[in-house]
Amino acid sequence: MAVGWFYLSVVVLCSLGSMCILSTIYWMRSWQGGFAWDGTMLMFNWHPVLMVTGMVVVYSAASLVYRLPQSWVGPKLPWKFGHAAMHLLAFILTVLGLHAVFDFHNQRKIPNLYSLHSWLGITTVFLFACQWFLGFAVFLLPWASVQLRSLLKPIHVFFGASILSLAIASVISGINEKLFFSLKNGTNSYSSLPSEAVFANCSGMLVVVFGLLVLYILLASSWKRPELGMQAERQALLHGGE
Amino acid sequence: MAVGWFYLSVVVLCSLGSMCILSTIYWMRSWQGGFAWDGTMLMFNWHPVLMVTGMVVVYSAASLVYRLPQSWVGPKLPWKFGHAAMHLLAFILTVLGLHAVFDFHNQRKIPNLYSLHSWLGITTVFLFACQWFLGFAVFLLPWASVQLRSLLKPIHVFFGASILSLAIASVISGINEKLFFSLKNGTNSYSSLPSEAVFANCSGMLVVVFGLLVLYILLASSWKRPELGMQAERQALLHGGE
Repeated sequence: MAVGWFYLSVVVLCSLGSMCILSTIYWMRSWQGGFAWDGTMLMFNWHPVLMVTGMVVVYSAASLVYRLPQSWVGPKLPWKFGHAAMHLLAFILTVLGLHAVFDFHNQRKIPNLYSLHSWLGITTVFLFACQWFLGFAVFLLPWASVQLRSLLKPIHVFFGASILSLAIASVISGINEKLFFSLKNGTNSYSSLPSEAVFANCSGMLVVVFGLLVLYILLASSWKRPELGMQAERQALLHGGE
Repeated sequence: MAVGWFYLSVVVLCSLGSMCILSTIYWMRSWQGGFAWDGTMLMFNWHPVLMVTGMVVVYSAASLVYRLPQSWVGPKLPWKFGHAAMHLLAFILTVLGLHAVFDFHNQRKIPNLYSLHSWLGITTVFLFACQWFLGFAVFLLPWASVQLRSLLKPIHVFFGASILSLAIASVISGINEKLFFSLKNGTNSYSSLPSEAVFANCSGMLVVVFGLLVLYILLASSWKRPELGMQAERQALLHGGE
């Protein structure tokens, strides 16, 4: 892969990821009254922001650590720590995002976990927790054999990509659900596509575009750690050759 | 891959795919009044059935054609025709599914394409159409060079898997949306999880499980056409060895 193409992709990814977070914050601030941490609707507003930030953007950044050419040379352990630590940050943000919606529901006596959005979302978070603990136990702690790691690695990579896909499906169904809740009035209904609806729909599609780009980079062979014998390309990426 | 494991996977896939279709039909028949093709709500009921059948189950079956060991030997052209023809069937079912919801909306003066579900769904169908025509032009018609085919094949495979992922996200948001529309009454609200809600949520989760299994088989290297030199395993799968 050419160096110019690599750095362009990094810039595009960082821009799209930032736009996903900022557009969710802007939606909640401009049309939903902003933020608080008090069990009211303003506490709920943290839910979409923290889920998009944690389960989509930080999760993606953590997953892509091994796609940086700098991680292909030298000792692997610091990169493994970085991968695990960034995923832990993603998980903490996700738990805070769940706390925001559960607290809001409990204060308003709204049942938890009834919609398909919530079923899929909580399943995704559960899979994420299992993936993190299994990854920590097998790939970071020193006890597992090389054979066990080789056996589990493709499953770890597959579930890593799957959890991101399920997170995106959860985000889409969540934005859709929120807009049906918020835009009920005849003059300002979802079906009349007021500015909030257009903006939030565009934010959802932005999350989809970002997620597809991340999945492509995760799964495309040209982005993976090169096999032995591909020293020239590796050196080019690290030292600026074309 | 062992023969027993292969046939078990085929049986599980066929069972899950059939259950996805049958559970959507059962939901529409038992709680939504059944089917008609007359522009009423009964016409809408074809929409979820045809989209799950076309964009998820038949699409998946068409995508998995090259994972059958029988396709790894002999001339490739008949398998290419099968792959394209099954995807065409999936596309026709999808267009009929769109026709069902557009006709219902038009008769009831409900705007089309306003929700994020519909934005994502129509984008998915558009990508599917592009993928089919590009695949037909490059991989089935004889004009394209081997170089062009090699260049486009990983992109074709990535978009094939991506379109299935987006279809699943569309199905999840669609089921969620439909349940919020249907279950509005205080005594029978979605949040009180009546039997229809539990059944439809389970159907949605079933689609997710089916989709993940299909994506695993599509992307896992052990399911792909073996490289030269792996004749023994290929022969074992074709002739029943273990």
